Amino acid sequence: MQLPFSFRIVATDGAARTGEMSTAHGLVHTPAFMPVGTQATVKGVHHDDVRASGAEILLGNTYHLMLRPTAERIAALGGLHAFMRWPHSILTDSGGFQVMSLAPLRKLREGGVTFRSHLDGAMVELTPERAVEVQILLGSDIAMQLDECVKLPAERTEIERAMKLSLRWAERCKRAFERAAPGRALFGIVQGGDNHALRAASARALVDLGFDGYAIGGLAVGEAQRVMLEVVAATAAALPTERPRYLMGVGTPDDLVEAIARGVDMFDCVMPTRNGRHGLAFTRFGPINIKNAHHADDARPLDAESPCPAAREFSRAYLHHLFRSNEALGGTLLSTINLYYYQELMAGARAAIAAGRFANYLAATKVQWQTKRDVNVEKS
Amino acid sequence: MQLPFSFRIVATDGAARTGEMSTAHGLVHTPAFMPVGTQATVKGVHHDDVRASGAEILLGNTYHLMLRPTAERIAALGGLHAFMRWPHSILTDSGGFQVMSLAPLRKLREGGVTFRSHLDGAMVELTPERAVEVQILLGSDIAMQLDECVKLPAERTEIERAMKLSLRWAERCKRAFERAAPGRALFGIVQGGDNHALRAASARALVDLGFDGYAIGGLAVGEAQRVMLEVVAATAAALPTERPRYLMGVGTPDDLVEAIARGVDMFDCVMPTRNGRHGLAFTRFGPINIKNAHHADDARPLDAESPCPAAREFSRAYLHHLFRSNEALGGTLLSTINLYYYQELMAGARAAIAAGRFANYLAATKVQWQTKRDVNVEKS
Repeated sequence: MQLPFSFRIVATDGAARTGEMSTAHGLVHTPAFMPVGTQATVKGVHHDDVRASGAEILLGNTYHLMLRPTAERIAALGGLHAFMRWPHSILTDSGGFQVMSLAPLRKLREGGVTFRSHLDGAMVELTPERAVEVQILLGSDIAMQLDECVKLPAERTEIERAMKLSLRWAERCKRAFERAAPGRALFGIVQGGDNHALRAASARALVDLGFDGYAIGGLAVGEAQRVMLEVVAATAAALPTERPRYLMGVGTPDDLVEAIARGVDMFDCVMPTRNGRHGLAFTRFGPINIKNAHHADDARPLDAESPCPAAREFSRAYLHHLFRSNEALGGTLLSTINLYYYQELMAGARAAIAAGRFANYLAATKVQWQTKRDVNVEKS
Repeated sequence: MQLPFSFRIVATDGAARTGEMSTAHGLVHTPAFMPVGTQATVKGVHHDDVRASGAEILLGNTYHLMLRPTAERIAALGGLHAFMRWPHSILTDSGGFQVMSLAPLRKLREGGVTFRSHLDGAMVELTPERAVEVQILLGSDIAMQLDECVKLPAERTEIERAMKLSLRWAERCKRAFERAAPGRALFGIVQGGDNHALRAASARALVDLGFDGYAIGGLAVGEAQRVMLEVVAATAAALPTERPRYLMGVGTPDDLVEAIARGVDMFDCVMPTRNGRHGLAFTRFGPINIKNAHHADDARPLDAESPCPAAREFSRAYLHHLFRSNEALGGTLLSTINLYYYQELMAGARAAIAAGRFANYLAATKVQWQTKRDVNVEKS
């Protein structure tokens, strides 16, 4: 029997909250960071190491998986959990964001979006109903509504049009989902760009429809961090206390702790793995570009007290050497180190909120990031 | 205190032998397969997984490491064992083979070989004395003499010239090594191409000089397997029983068991990892090209009874998907699976020799390779 999805707040500290989300595949402690398993694998990292880092939930990409190996094939092989050997919780996105950013050709209509596959050039249709069907075939614990995400800056009329279309799609997704997947969760997605009134209207309408959780979409798409955090704060405040809030596609360690301070419970982002593959390590002491020449003779580990074995055991000189030599192990080790760091940051936030000292945690964490940072990080 | 190198035969079965080699970094059971850690990493595989596969000794490449990060830097960082976090035994080659195959420009003289670095274009000199010095800086447990390896087919005069030069270099290496590295091992390398008389002369001269072990070099360089095995049989028979015999750069699973039947104790080869990165799995049932379309819907693992978790746990469909999607995890998993299989083959050979049934093991292994093989393997 599939247990129904549930969420409960364990403690709050200002706007920040810590809680427990329960799915058929286990408990997820929030604030939670979800590593991105785009093509049924977190790039370069074995699922055992993803789990060991502390991850309790992964994100899978509907767009990629519906094209290859296809949702039908994954369903025939027992669903995404069995296919990729991840027996813990999985959230799938709806595919909408990748259609907009990856498909070489696309046509948006009221009914859905038609796009050309970047793999074989075939024309594919993604409707709200099909997005739900694909996610049910994948068997994710949390599905996302299909939405349209607008790149910022954009005109208000364009933001409003996309927000309203996303609302109509939200309703269709909800109807399709309720029939097919009782006990699993469907999240609505608040849109509205950087316009607070549109965000409020979107949130209100979604809450009226009623979802298991609410995502804040359409951020980290070009706007300044200050703008993003203002929208996050206003939107989170407009969402029901008792439902999880998920900030999609965000972000840097700093983005995460600032969004937690504003009431966000869940995150996903490719930054730890993408940056890891490019030689950037996120550490308690700030970001470190291991390719910098001054690491070549440095026998010290990245962080002798990290819970991550790779951060404790390998010297900076060795990691530097792996990147200089284009050895794949370098990207694997730094991706793993970064996944551990993101989880460490979440665990620290959860403990701090539970103890009522989140403001101190935020301040102390930021001070420590400055101690040895040797590079500035852009969001991408 | 560094323990002296030692080797003892535990059992023989025909020409095949099983034994124990002891170095300052542990015991190596022979016949032994050494995974290749070219640039201080076995490509794509974490050292914990290399160890878990059963490997007791790795090979490190002097040519690559002397150019980057340099032997002096590795020595300053505590030697190759500490640098790459491999506390077990390491054998280093002399760099000669890679100079011949990788350096864009080289000049061979009696004194040594001068070559242009493929990394930065600098001219570098590798003499017998420098090859020994570099290996001592790296801190390997077993060092190899500098030699000249001739590609086959070649004229007898050319093979003889290179063999005799290699002998003179062997003597210089031995002299340099004895002064600098008491307790560690230096192996001589038998050359002589496919000419049995030259091989016999080379073996005799090396034995007169006296080495801790003897390698058979200059094979698997273009000749047929039959030719290679004839040379191996003749050369092994000309070497002292009480010293380990190492067939360099070989080979396929079939090459390995056939060479063991002819008295070889040690092997190294990039085949398990190189082929793994390209989608070829070595299994008890023969080689399997996981990229073949018929694996796309196959829920079965590669080998449900393998000691390798990846071979047991992941479906062929999932591995196929990783390769089709160009995900690095695919190469990592198949490399790991292949390293386990090579070690499984060695463990099986050791047990069979100890039990006096190696001929049966050889025959049964070959029959089983035919049961499900879906591809033919070339040596490269």
